[in-house]
Amino acid sequence: MKGVILSLAPEARVVDLTHAVPAQDIRHAAIVLDEVTPWFPPGTLHVVVVDPGVGSDRRIVYARIGHQQYLAPDNGVLSRLARRVSPSTIIHVARPEYWLPVVSATFHGRDIFAPVAARLALGLKPEALGERLAELVTLDWSEADVARGKIEGKIELIDSFGNLVSNITSEQLADCPRNELVTVECDEHETQGIFRTYADQPEMTLIALVGSSGKLELAIVGESAAIMLGIRPGTPITVRWPVG
Amino acid sequence: MKGVILSLAPEARVVDLTHAVPAQDIRHAAIVLDEVTPWFPPGTLHVVVVDPGVGSDRRIVYARIGHQQYLAPDNGVLSRLARRVSPSTIIHVARPEYWLPVVSATFHGRDIFAPVAARLALGLKPEALGERLAELVTLDWSEADVARGKIEGKIELIDSFGNLVSNITSEQLADCPRNELVTVECDEHETQGIFRTYADQPEMTLIALVGSSGKLELAIVGESAAIMLGIRPGTPITVRWPVG
Amino acid sequence: MKGVILSLAPEARVVDLTHAVPAQDIRHAAIVLDEVTPWFPPGTLHVVVVDPGVGSDRRIVYARIGHQQYLAPDNGVLSRLARRVSPSTIIHVARPEYWLPVVSATFHGRDIFAPVAARLALGLKPEALGERLAELVTLDWSEADVARGKIEGKIELIDSFGNLVSNITSEQLADCPRNELVTVECDEHETQGIFRTYADQPEMTLIALVGSSGKLELAIVGESAAIMLGIRPGTPITVRWPVG
Repeated sequence: MKGVILSLAPEARVVDLTHAVPAQDIRHAAIVLDEVTPWFPPGTLHVVVVDPGVGSDRRIVYARIGHQQYLAPDNGVLSRLARRVSPSTIIHVARPEYWLPVVSATFHGRDIFAPVAARLALGLKPEALGERLAELVTLDWSEADVARGKIEGKIELIDSFGNLVSNITSEQLADCPRNELVTVECDEHETQGIFRTYADQPEMTLIALVGSSGKLELAIVGESAAIMLGIRPGTPITVRWPVG
Repeated sequence: MKGVILSLAPEARVVDLTHAVPAQDIRHAAIVLDEVTPWFPPGTLHVVVVDPGVGSDRRIVYARIGHQQYLAPDNGVLSRLARRVSPSTIIHVARPEYWLPVVSATFHGRDIFAPVAARLALGLKPEALGERLAELVTLDWSEADVARGKIEGKIELIDSFGNLVSNITSEQLADCPRNELVTVECDEHETQGIFRTYADQPEMTLIALVGSSGKLELAIVGESAAIMLGIRPGTPITVRWPVG
Repeated sequence: MKGVILSLAPEARVVDLTHAVPAQDIRHAAIVLDEVTPWFPPGTLHVVVVDPGVGSDRRIVYARIGHQQYLAPDNGVLSRLARRVSPSTIIHVARPEYWLPVVSATFHGRDIFAPVAARLALGLKPEALGERLAELVTLDWSEADVARGKIEGKIELIDSFGNLVSNITSEQLADCPRNELVTVECDEHETQGIFRTYADQPEMTLIALVGSSGKLELAIVGESAAIMLGIRPGTPITVRWPVG
């Protein structure tokens, strides 16, 4: 892909965003895109090739969401971004004159995404790529369930340290104390309190804290909670505190 | 290596090609180079440091193959490229005046390859590096055996998704039907049909398809075939279909 | 982090030094920095975010050591560099006007290190970041114990090939013969001789050699010694030879 981009647009600046998305894990990629891409300079084009449906009838789309641009399979990978900020432009990438002359059935990253990205970098108008679309394919991004003294969510992501990141937001935790009266449960594991940093407890301690993306997470200080507890995305997590 | 290159040639553009070649796997690297490097801009210099023989009497070579340039140990890592397109220039990298002043026995990447690459980027003529050579060291790249109604090849590469890529080419499959009359066998496993994309079958299905490099491969949809089947490079693979 | 840097300093040249430091392993990172960063162009700013104490009262520091600049948590990660070359400048990174407006408790890489690095790249004087400090936090970098006919050290690092790199230097080995009279012991394993390169012995052989960083290391030719022998950093290693 870099070879094709640089062949067409030698001056393009190519930045590796991440190589750590588990193979074909669309939900993981969607969360990473949502947390990471808004920090890039306005107008950056993010090329996303987490694409297990390559070569099927899944569409390829160009989208402008907030101040960023995206080129991605329309498989839900942009739907977490689009849940927060509605895309201002969505275009079906359908005109083969901007692709490589021969397109394989299994590597559209090289044969379609890379040449289209290079041409956009050179100034091609996104509208030239194909017809406008009304909306993107979406995935289920259900929110945590907030009640009096109790929030029920789920683990959404294992980060590269093995921390278990949930869908419970700091806003949802506004009424929750941070002291030892709070209990956080996940699978058969339980911990008291919500801390500020990993360094607030000794090594090997299971702790809950609000991480850098504003989500409640479980961590084992100095270790991988995912490996030590064997917990996977989708596992329910519950926060309880006494109300009175 | 990047530090040495940028110290000598601050304007050089350095692109990471891959960090995913298994340690010291010359055959794997040779296949990746053959499939990936022709997509780069003409004149790109590819620096290859898959070099288990570092410090021994293996030579270091500069080669021009097609429109690309290479700097590599002469251990066969360029021989797959050279099988398709004969190198127009091969030079023995032997003159120490272009190396770092002190050369270690175990990290020629930093001490020889990086400074030579930087100097070539700055305009040094390859002929200055040493004497011309007539040919490169080669490895065995035997082709699949094509008969009437039967092709016998072998698995050559496990890709980063765990797909099993063979040495059977789409050209060799020209007479083979793609429907359920075709049987593909590998180790004790068997599947019918040759599909177009991974998405053509449900998750967890073993399928055969022609991948983006034009080779027949075996994949398990949504999973790693290499891990699930325990198959390694070198394993025989056979395609059969009824004739007459 | 790259997004924040490029948003503030679009012309900055960002180079990935390594993604292979084991999570939160300060000693490993300290050794890598010591071996790798002096090879970069003078004035390069190395941003180091191996930071298990993020959000605690550990300081963040800017340091000039030799011809290189560093931005790092003051957790000992620079102390191996500083053992060889005394830092000429150490500054406490304490003035929030150069950080992002909102700073999380768990990702100072994005919120403090990246914007400070970008501003330094744009010409901000390091002195503007905060007060001068007299010294850095240090770790125990005890040297190997050299006696007549015997050196006792320890394994300090597992490299990416699984080689076991010790703290015994080539200078300390000056009086040691390299032939089969030398015995190197580590854990319950033993090998004779000190070789020049990995290629000096057949595959699967345990060998000792002096690696590219000038340290004695144990390797298994063509394999990972760390995995095959199960040896971890901190394990004692002894070199013996007959004297007199």
